[in-house]
Amino acid sequence: MSELLKGIAASDGVAVAKAYLLVQPDLSFSKKSITDVEKEKARLDSALDQSKTELEKIKDHAEKTIGTEEAQVFEAHIMILADPDFIGTIKQEIEDQKENAEAALSDVSGNFISTFEAMTDNDYMKERAADIRDVTKRVMSHLLGVNLPDPTMINEEVVIIAKDLAPSDTAQLNRKYVKAFVTDVGGRTAHSAIMARSLEIPAVVGTDKATDLVQSAGDVKIAVNGITGDVIIDPTADEISQFEKAGKDFVQQKEEWAKLKNESTITADGKHFILGANIGTPKDLDGVLDNGGEAIGLYRTEFLYMDSSELPTEDDQFEAYRKVLAGMNGKQVVVRTMDIGGDKHLPYLPLPEEQNPFLGYRAIRISLNKQDIFRTQLRALIRASHYGSLGIMFPMIATVNEFKQAKAIFQEEFDKLKAAGTPVSDDIEVGMMMEIPAAAVLADKFAKVTDFFSIGTNDLIQYTMAADRGNDRVSYLYQPYNPAILRLVKNIIDSAHKEGKWVGMCGEAAGDPIMDCILLGMGLDEYSMSATSILKIRSLMKRIDTSKVVELAEKAVNESVTNEDNIQLVKKYIDI
Amino acid sequence: MSELLKGIAASDGVAVAKAYLLVQPDLSFSKKSITDVEKEKARLDSALDQSKTELEKIKDHAEKTIGTEEAQVFEAHIMILADPDFIGTIKQEIEDQKENAEAALSDVSGNFISTFEAMTDNDYMKERAADIRDVTKRVMSHLLGVNLPDPTMINEEVVIIAKDLAPSDTAQLNRKYVKAFVTDVGGRTAHSAIMARSLEIPAVVGTDKATDLVQSAGDVKIAVNGITGDVIIDPTADEISQFEKAGKDFVQQKEEWAKLKNESTITADGKHFILGANIGTPKDLDGVLDNGGEAIGLYRTEFLYMDSSELPTEDDQFEAYRKVLAGMNGKQVVVRTMDIGGDKHLPYLPLPEEQNPFLGYRAIRISLNKQDIFRTQLRALIRASHYGSLGIMFPMIATVNEFKQAKAIFQEEFDKLKAAGTPVSDDIEVGMMMEIPAAAVLADKFAKVTDFFSIGTNDLIQYTMAADRGNDRVSYLYQPYNPAILRLVKNIIDSAHKEGKWVGMCGEAAGDPIMDCILLGMGLDEYSMSATSILKIRSLMKRIDTSKVVELAEKAVNESVTNEDNIQLVKKYIDI
Repeated sequence: MSELLKGIAASDGVAVAKAYLLVQPDLSFSKKSITDVEKEKARLDSALDQSKTELEKIKDHAEKTIGTEEAQVFEAHIMILADPDFIGTIKQEIEDQKENAEAALSDVSGNFISTFEAMTDNDYMKERAADIRDVTKRVMSHLLGVNLPDPTMINEEVVIIAKDLAPSDTAQLNRKYVKAFVTDVGGRTAHSAIMARSLEIPAVVGTDKATDLVQSAGDVKIAVNGITGDVIIDPTADEISQFEKAGKDFVQQKEEWAKLKNESTITADGKHFILGANIGTPKDLDGVLDNGGEAIGLYRTEFLYMDSSELPTEDDQFEAYRKVLAGMNGKQVVVRTMDIGGDKHLPYLPLPEEQNPFLGYRAIRISLNKQDIFRTQLRALIRASHYGSLGIMFPMIATVNEFKQAKAIFQEEFDKLKAAGTPVSDDIEVGMMMEIPAAAVLADKFAKVTDFFSIGTNDLIQYTMAADRGNDRVSYLYQPYNPAILRLVKNIIDSAHKEGKWVGMCGEAAGDPIMDCILLGMGLDEYSMSATSILKIRSLMKRIDTSKVVELAEKAVNESVTNEDNIQLVKKYIDI
Repeated sequence: MSELLKGIAASDGVAVAKAYLLVQPDLSFSKKSITDVEKEKARLDSALDQSKTELEKIKDHAEKTIGTEEAQVFEAHIMILADPDFIGTIKQEIEDQKENAEAALSDVSGNFISTFEAMTDNDYMKERAADIRDVTKRVMSHLLGVNLPDPTMINEEVVIIAKDLAPSDTAQLNRKYVKAFVTDVGGRTAHSAIMARSLEIPAVVGTDKATDLVQSAGDVKIAVNGITGDVIIDPTADEISQFEKAGKDFVQQKEEWAKLKNESTITADGKHFILGANIGTPKDLDGVLDNGGEAIGLYRTEFLYMDSSELPTEDDQFEAYRKVLAGMNGKQVVVRTMDIGGDKHLPYLPLPEEQNPFLGYRAIRISLNKQDIFRTQLRALIRASHYGSLGIMFPMIATVNEFKQAKAIFQEEFDKLKAAGTPVSDDIEVGMMMEIPAAAVLADKFAKVTDFFSIGTNDLIQYTMAADRGNDRVSYLYQPYNPAILRLVKNIIDSAHKEGKWVGMCGEAAGDPIMDCILLGMGLDEYSMSATSILKIRSLMKRIDTSKVVELAEKAVNESVTNEDNIQLVKKYIDI
């Protein structure tokens, strides 16, 4: 029986395929006293053997389909199965406590995990804890005779249904077979949603109960529309053909959009706005050019630091920046300096444990304190400036003094390199992220000292609403259209324009059609988004007469009271 | 040799006394193999005996000087010394591993602690972990033959020097002998600073290196001025008499201030403002009346929930609220509904573990979700309204919808009680805390639906600056005078006044003279602070001509760029 579910449209596209339920089975057990110790140890050995055979199969498959690096994690798991300390302790406990293998496994692995996790400064040890947790699950499943889902082994077209998808889950998926994601939790800015957009896989998130419904429906097909947020479980033949038609329409629309690839972004009344892309590594450059990006509005440099086992050298960084700048052929590249801390950590740069890392020691706060790291990055950037059009921006600026201090350090390094005869550009723009409410409120003072602003909506919303964007319990407060957010955005834009400076937006909201209608009305100059959203937004903007959205933006800021008010308001003005 | 240290003045008053260094001694040890197991167990037993004797002495002393309840913790420690599971496991490890008692104690207690701490939902278990940590320290000190500081045993006048003081440390101090605190870390809003003000003990915090300097200076006197933030280690006779004179002047000034107890707060140009107090329990009422409080601007009800082992009943709550309302003789009492979550937890109400609890599920977000708890509190409040002048306010309101929802629940309970013939006041005011930037920015919309605002500066500053107020690494961003904060405050005040509503402030900043000069200029109606600050601020306000500070406030908001700018600005206008 077909059943319709409404979720949040998180990644465009339509798919119909078999449901693949990625949920953990029930691994609960009873603790039992045993008498035959040898038999119990043999049960454990057999479960270990089965786990090993299974992991070897998964590892081989992963190496072929996903990549050698991604498959490494399974090698680590196989090693744990043979770890004499871990396995020996479990067997000892079976012997000493005369308890069943399930209880001994659970106890010992619990001790190992809490010991490793207690080493809070050590990311390596935390990963070991995660590995032991994974292996324990697998061995337990064999002791109990239940099956664990193994997404790496998928070899037919499926729609993945899960409570949530962690980055490690998505890394193990094979794009060839995974036609769509549907999750219970999460919003448009969840990791899984961002990942889906970058892989161009349709996704609907926040359906609340997809896993429950599919679990009770059994072996069924799922139809997913990532544009509308509709999901149908066990669709009828009619529904399947409707979805397939929507899918075809979407492909056709994408072909239409593709024609806009080499055009500028000009509105119906002839105004030009810049559509840029957010990237993480030089590898993303092709996607930007394929999708007609007019700039890179945000180059997140933390991947350079995170993908490495030690601080990247000045030359390594220079090479990465040069590649991106040269590749963009004179179009501007705005590079954000290191945004570490918060939820991003470096194994080789231990940071203090914090109660509230998002309100803690991160980004420019670290850079101003660890100036050697900051100066190395700035030198690499200044050297790369020779190869293109460079903007540098500092993340998490809260006070004018912080900006001035960061800018002064930039200037020192610039002057030194120039004096040494290094070829550098004299037109580097130095700006800042606008993502802290204090800076947004005081934008007029910042506009006097900075070359440009780039609005980071994810953080700006989370701080302004006092709601962690990764916390499901308060996700209802992640409200991009809340008039309070829009007032801050308007203040940032007006303040910059008054001083003759330009303003971009590089948060997720910049690729959102509803938000863009309001932003056009406010006169935002540059919109930086996932490369895959650029052509769709270009097509939208070509339809818009900016003189009409000016009134819309004014109402959104002055008259509306709630986030919902503004969604309705935009829909009244424009057919989205 | 006398040495001057500058810290943050955290609690008024001056003291000169012997330094008492409250720092942990070095308890590091070497792990050694042993051969004589019995001798090693005997060493452990002897350390256990010595610990027990010591703890019994401390407990007796604490019962006499501080109170039976505070002394209970030592009883718990004594019980751990005799716990067969804990002690037995240590002895077993000495036997099995042939290692010295220090290593076995450290290993076993580490395991116990991490097991208890891993039970993250269970506050009782976490406290057990803290107890085991304390007891382990004490036993280790006897094994190593070093002395632990025992602040409960102080029996002469001292100044406590510590890195930081936890609430549990301060609970164990004897006010009779402790003449002042000096700490390395912390700001004016740290727990230790708030505690010092409420105990009226002079305090200087954030000196950075007081413990180091005192450690190397040895047995010396310390002179502390909690008004200026000056600390002198090993002062000369001259310096001592200067400090003693400052102390006498302060006592004299306090006597002058005491004369203002029964006066209203009238400025030099004849305007009346209300000075209220922040309280946590009905016990604080005497302090409010003794210090001439004109209202209670903030009654923090979470203590009712935290001091209990289960949810307080409606009748328990009613009794507490009634006592405060009746005790204030018709002066207004503003009660804040439950502000649990963030850094406050209830053992009987397990909350999910969060990455950023300050940006998570707390305060009204819990109340709107767990409506049974919220409705019980509202009913108790509505019933108590008959006995005085009641205001109710909701904490952590971010959106107008949240306020409307909370207000509607209040109205339902009010109507039910009234229909049942319960005597209730028809003049209950229902307002909200202004502590989230989104609400501050949208104050004009909120002012249409609320009876009043109360500005909570601690949270407002931490969210606006994106800096956890409890995190030392970012404490430089706790900037009450930052023009961004002041603009939000001004927007709140102006928006309320436009709708004919009143505005109070109940954060720590309301008791700060510099802030108050600016707030008077903005026309803030009510100032709620630690009771002990009221008379000092009343004396200040009597000197101020509000027409002059209006210009000051305008400059602070429009011209100043930094927090420091505004400190200088106020000092130019008024001699503080």
